[in-house]
Amino acid sequence: MKTNSVKVEIITIGDEILIGQIVDTNSAWMATELNKSGFEIAQITSVHDKANHIVESLDLALNRVDIILFTGGIGPTNDDITKQTLTNYFDTKLVFDESIIRNIEQLFSTRSNFVINELTRAQAMVPEKCTVIPNLVGTAPITWFEKDGKVIVSMPGVPYEMKQAMNLEIIPRLQKYFQTPALLHKTVQVYGYGESALALEIADWENELPENVSLAYLPNYGIVKLRLSGTSNDILALEFIINQQIGKLSQILGSSIVAYEDIPIAELVGNLLITKGLMVATAESCTGGNIAHQFTMIPGSSAFYKGSVVAYSNEIKTNVLQVYADDIEKYGAVSQIVVIQMAENVRKLLKTDVAIATSGIAGPTGGTADKPIGTVWIAICSEEKTVSREFHFGSLREQNIERATQAALLMLKEIL
Amino acid sequence: MKTNSVKVEIITIGDEILIGQIVDTNSAWMATELNKSGFEIAQITSVHDKANHIVESLDLALNRVDIILFTGGIGPTNDDITKQTLTNYFDTKLVFDESIIRNIEQLFSTRSNFVINELTRAQAMVPEKCTVIPNLVGTAPITWFEKDGKVIVSMPGVPYEMKQAMNLEIIPRLQKYFQTPALLHKTVQVYGYGESALALEIADWENELPENVSLAYLPNYGIVKLRLSGTSNDILALEFIINQQIGKLSQILGSSIVAYEDIPIAELVGNLLITKGLMVATAESCTGGNIAHQFTMIPGSSAFYKGSVVAYSNEIKTNVLQVYADDIEKYGAVSQIVVIQMAENVRKLLKTDVAIATSGIAGPTGGTADKPIGTVWIAICSEEKTVSREFHFGSLREQNIERATQAALLMLKEIL
Repeated sequence: MKTNSVKVEIITIGDEILIGQIVDTNSAWMATELNKSGFEIAQITSVHDKANHIVESLDLALNRVDIILFTGGIGPTNDDITKQTLTNYFDTKLVFDESIIRNIEQLFSTRSNFVINELTRAQAMVPEKCTVIPNLVGTAPITWFEKDGKVIVSMPGVPYEMKQAMNLEIIPRLQKYFQTPALLHKTVQVYGYGESALALEIADWENELPENVSLAYLPNYGIVKLRLSGTSNDILALEFIINQQIGKLSQILGSSIVAYEDIPIAELVGNLLITKGLMVATAESCTGGNIAHQFTMIPGSSAFYKGSVVAYSNEIKTNVLQVYADDIEKYGAVSQIVVIQMAENVRKLLKTDVAIATSGIAGPTGGTADKPIGTVWIAICSEEKTVSREFHFGSLREQNIERATQAALLMLKEIL
Repeated sequence: MKTNSVKVEIITIGDEILIGQIVDTNSAWMATELNKSGFEIAQITSVHDKANHIVESLDLALNRVDIILFTGGIGPTNDDITKQTLTNYFDTKLVFDESIIRNIEQLFSTRSNFVINELTRAQAMVPEKCTVIPNLVGTAPITWFEKDGKVIVSMPGVPYEMKQAMNLEIIPRLQKYFQTPALLHKTVQVYGYGESALALEIADWENELPENVSLAYLPNYGIVKLRLSGTSNDILALEFIINQQIGKLSQILGSSIVAYEDIPIAELVGNLLITKGLMVATAESCTGGNIAHQFTMIPGSSAFYKGSVVAYSNEIKTNVLQVYADDIEKYGAVSQIVVIQMAENVRKLLKTDVAIATSGIAGPTGGTADKPIGTVWIAICSEEKTVSREFHFGSLREQNIERATQAALLMLKEIL
């Protein structure tokens, strides 16, 4: 059943990645989309804006893979040299392409403060021996080269320009050029196990997985994702096999499996709320608006999410959320009694069906012997009931905010 | 003045990166820290959990660089093969290290639901010919190999384990092993220019930069970061030269330079608020809690940030923020009059010195001919005055949320 897949190397070009100024989020997005379309990412390489480094990485990649996708280094400024480097590599020269200028004029017509200057005009110079793919949302054209049955594409590093080009032009053209076998990944998300405890729990199942199915463990803020992968020309047969294995897994792990797909927990909870016709509100102290942010990043979230009171100071807990000041005084802001009042009162204030509240010590300061950094109280309430729980996460601020967000969303999911 | 720097390659191991399941944030963090300590990142490579791929990348990297840092692939589960692969590569064998088990016992003693099982115990098997560096926050030990004056380190891929090991052990040991020349980067952040318009504006200045100083442009949600870089054994002389150039640049760009350091705008604004002894509140519609989240990710943000009303639904705008329902009816929620009321009322409600409000259409739905997707109104107010402004960003939800957040923070910065 295993077939040879078409291999891709992503090469990101830009000093800013190698000095750590930006996080390369493009590669993960590209890898996801390419995978869905049946391509396998063999390697991701990040190199400097230097001609010899670009050429070396291209030479090495041509030995390894069928498709090389360059991102970045094609802006209008002097530090960007990818276009000239590829022009030299493919032994051609730069020529003026009128259609690109027309595209840029079109693009700038809706932006009041943009004018076409000489640097923008230079974007219309393209290698003579290549296929030029228009960039509908930016000034840098995309170039497509072919060599010995392999394809080399150079595209912008600006995320939304890259995404637009990949979805509308590059992936469809690659699928046409190569006959791609299907790759299938399915992910289940497990809560309540450490990575090795989970591995022991499912060891027998793992050992009996069919040969063409592989398994990976991915811990992520309290959740372990289990990913089953396979390649096949018969996608339906492969899907049947993988679903069968997930069925067996579900008998072992039961309700510890919190999701059967690889989507953010916020989206999973949002979908559940929509299905049940319920609206949610949040009162956030230690998560500081992160639950609101996770919900509102989802398109259409107004169908289930009304809003939040981010009660970062105690004054807001008492004045806006009507938490009893005496209780804060007596039990502290990070306490069961306070977090329950926050949840119940925000539900009434924002008139929703259910509500989430968080209060905790994210760090790096504010911990005590009694309530160390990482102590978080979470409450969930509906008209019928309120549940609350204390967590002890860890010592790192970012991690505490993320884990508290995750835990709160899963507590809400449980009562739905 | 230019000296040869000590070169590093980061090799991240893990199928989850190559199928796009996770974004590799480790590399950017490592690159930043290594740069600060005088090392140059020559390449970042992501490879599969496959022995031949790991070995091939190691062989190639040994030809290019002085230091190879592996992350990932050393967990307790079957898909992780880095330790065995390196053990074979360096022609040694795995031996049991009692001190690692003691470290794991110590680590698990504070976590109620963790027990040492056989997979955890296997973490104490380490290559005989290497230096073992303890992992104080996880079970997988860090291994350090030396070969022909080069150093190869294998560390966990779990971000906080990696960060702890890098800061406390690996970087100090590398600085001792190599004599590292200093690398210096300075960044200024420019607002209000497109990338190529900025390049033309500063072309004369750029052409006259000293030879040992290089320049890079980095556009980021409406801001262009300009990064000046240099390497030298005389760090003070280099710093003087770079500061001199930034002084010249500041004469050209004036107030378009919004920051002279590479920190998030939220942190810059937070520092300003602390200096002036002011507290801020937010009323967020289209940004959905992202401004609150950006503020509260900053350690110590309670010194300047009180909280937010995330008024995602109109009902909350009227009930909690006391916006006139008639105005929403007549002018729409995305209007100057509504966003001004949101800002002024949240300032009174949360009793702060200044306040930010946002209301806009993030997309992908909700746009009209009059107010297309990307239309955002932002208001800032203090006791003395209120300023408001309309923006037109673009068509992508995530981008609109980020750009509105950035613009709101910069508007606040202006009035401070």
